[in-house]
Amino acid sequence: MNNSYQRIVMASRPNGEVKVENFRLETVPVPEINDGEVLIRNHFLSLDPYMRMRMEDVKSYAAPQAIGDTMIGGTAGQIVATKNPKFAIGDYVVGMQGWAEMGVSDGTLLRKVDTTHIPLSAYLGAVGMPGMTAWYGFTQIMQAKPGETIVVSAASGAVGSVVGQLAKLRGCRAVGIAGGAEKCAYVVNELGFDACIDYKAGNLLADLAAATPDGIDAIFENVGGEIFDACLSRMNPFGRIALCGMIAGYDGEPLPIKNTRVLLTMRLSMRGFIVSEYPELWPQGLKELGGLAATGKLKFRESVAPGLAAAPEAFLGLLKGKNFGKQLVKLN
Amino acid sequence: MNNSYQRIVMASRPNGEVKVENFRLETVPVPEINDGEVLIRNHFLSLDPYMRMRMEDVKSYAAPQAIGDTMIGGTAGQIVATKNPKFAIGDYVVGMQGWAEMGVSDGTLLRKVDTTHIPLSAYLGAVGMPGMTAWYGFTQIMQAKPGETIVVSAASGAVGSVVGQLAKLRGCRAVGIAGGAEKCAYVVNELGFDACIDYKAGNLLADLAAATPDGIDAIFENVGGEIFDACLSRMNPFGRIALCGMIAGYDGEPLPIKNTRVLLTMRLSMRGFIVSEYPELWPQGLKELGGLAATGKLKFRESVAPGLAAAPEAFLGLLKGKNFGKQLVKLN
Repeated sequence: MNNSYQRIVMASRPNGEVKVENFRLETVPVPEINDGEVLIRNHFLSLDPYMRMRMEDVKSYAAPQAIGDTMIGGTAGQIVATKNPKFAIGDYVVGMQGWAEMGVSDGTLLRKVDTTHIPLSAYLGAVGMPGMTAWYGFTQIMQAKPGETIVVSAASGAVGSVVGQLAKLRGCRAVGIAGGAEKCAYVVNELGFDACIDYKAGNLLADLAAATPDGIDAIFENVGGEIFDACLSRMNPFGRIALCGMIAGYDGEPLPIKNTRVLLTMRLSMRGFIVSEYPELWPQGLKELGGLAATGKLKFRESVAPGLAAAPEAFLGLLKGKNFGKQLVKLN
Repeated sequence: MNNSYQRIVMASRPNGEVKVENFRLETVPVPEINDGEVLIRNHFLSLDPYMRMRMEDVKSYAAPQAIGDTMIGGTAGQIVATKNPKFAIGDYVVGMQGWAEMGVSDGTLLRKVDTTHIPLSAYLGAVGMPGMTAWYGFTQIMQAKPGETIVVSAASGAVGSVVGQLAKLRGCRAVGIAGGAEKCAYVVNELGFDACIDYKAGNLLADLAAATPDGIDAIFENVGGEIFDACLSRMNPFGRIALCGMIAGYDGEPLPIKNTRVLLTMRLSMRGFIVSEYPELWPQGLKELGGLAATGKLKFRESVAPGLAAAPEAFLGLLKGKNFGKQLVKLN
């Protein structure tokens, strides 16, 4: 085992669009562990849109990422040294070790996972935080009944892909929105959505109307802006909106909701949520997601960037929708 | 009894701002009543913002007002002829007879009211639909706990005034927003709100911050636009928003919500509602409101326009906030 590892810290806060200059790769010594702690070698780093918001120094649901600190992030890896009786060397674990090849943990928020039927990386995607985000929004907020129509934006992504598949399993009509013909084909042909609209095709409103002949009963919103307004225009009375993200506005540009009247006339419910605030529901959700993934009923796709140094570029791509499926970084 | 009465029909749909030309006063014969029906002489007509939305020919929660038909509206009056055993001549009733001096009803949606301790007109305000709107939004959506801060726009109006008083009775900090120093003084000194912000004073954000030192836990929104955005900027985590109206946009101008990020970062819940869709809750709500009004614990104020012919001007004034308290028309 090498006595140093690499990590990426936030070098500076972005001013508008994130740039690779906002990150800095560092080589640091592997720390000694104390009683109760474990040392983890991370195999995968998860890249997620929420990280963009954390880079801002604004009041939000969590403290902002500090300049000079390791970038926050979910990781999956293996125990390589342990002074904690709950963990053995070789155990596969998922945690929040950040953009780093190694990390130390006292076991808090560290979850042992079984890779017999589910690949390790999936615990950062469909059977991890993104999957739980989809599961929470779908089951707790959208509450779609069989026969109802749901729409999810960023439908080929780590979260959106799970939303639509859960909806299909419950007998709903699932309509996705994604960028580009290739992603849309995947959403329909591989994931089994009823339809997927390519927002880059320039015909969003008409395509959405055609795909939702009975209107929309529930939205899972990941993007915001024009796409969200278009969906709002199709809402049925008492529609539900799970507001998960507004990636279109993460660089700070204004992202108004213009179709506000429909909130009132259609008596819509909208709720923003952060899935980590509902730990009591994770066992139930992960059990369902894990069962579906292990039996092939929940499909997922990954974009894997090679090596920690590739993380900043991969993250910038994620924010622009260049990824296809869950964006991961394979660590060496 | 005269053998004719006056009514006002919608002559044309408004194009942008409503004008008096959109209405037409007509004299029509008093109809004969059939078995099961009653004839009502209306003493008061209620003017309410929702009427503006009904004048548009757009998909909404109710069919649009038809051109040439009597304008929709709540009324309070007395039975003057009856072929329905449930109603006697002289009974005071509240119904939906529209902008008209008289009306025929088969008793459906007609409610007998007791004017012993509560004046008849109050059944169109604090102990009627506006009061129930406040009660529903406050108890079912805002669900504010003692010590929490609530904000209500159009605070001196028929709905807003009740929201704040219910909040005070439940131990909340109640902050109103109203137009002009006179209305604000009334909201604080007469209605007992903790503070009231004059949005016309040009210092909305700073005044709001000063009046909500602990942030805002729940909003009752009647206005929309800049005022709503200002309130959103003060929201605490897990805040609730009862979306009752957006009068600032009723003439068709765009009324975007700009502060969208806070919906997500503060995990807010927002719900549009129409109180008439929850008839099962009216007995409970009206019992509470009636008890409070009869014992002087629920205060209200009325602007009364004289005679049916004054209704269009009074309605235009209501949409511009010229009324002070519940806008009524006294019918002859």
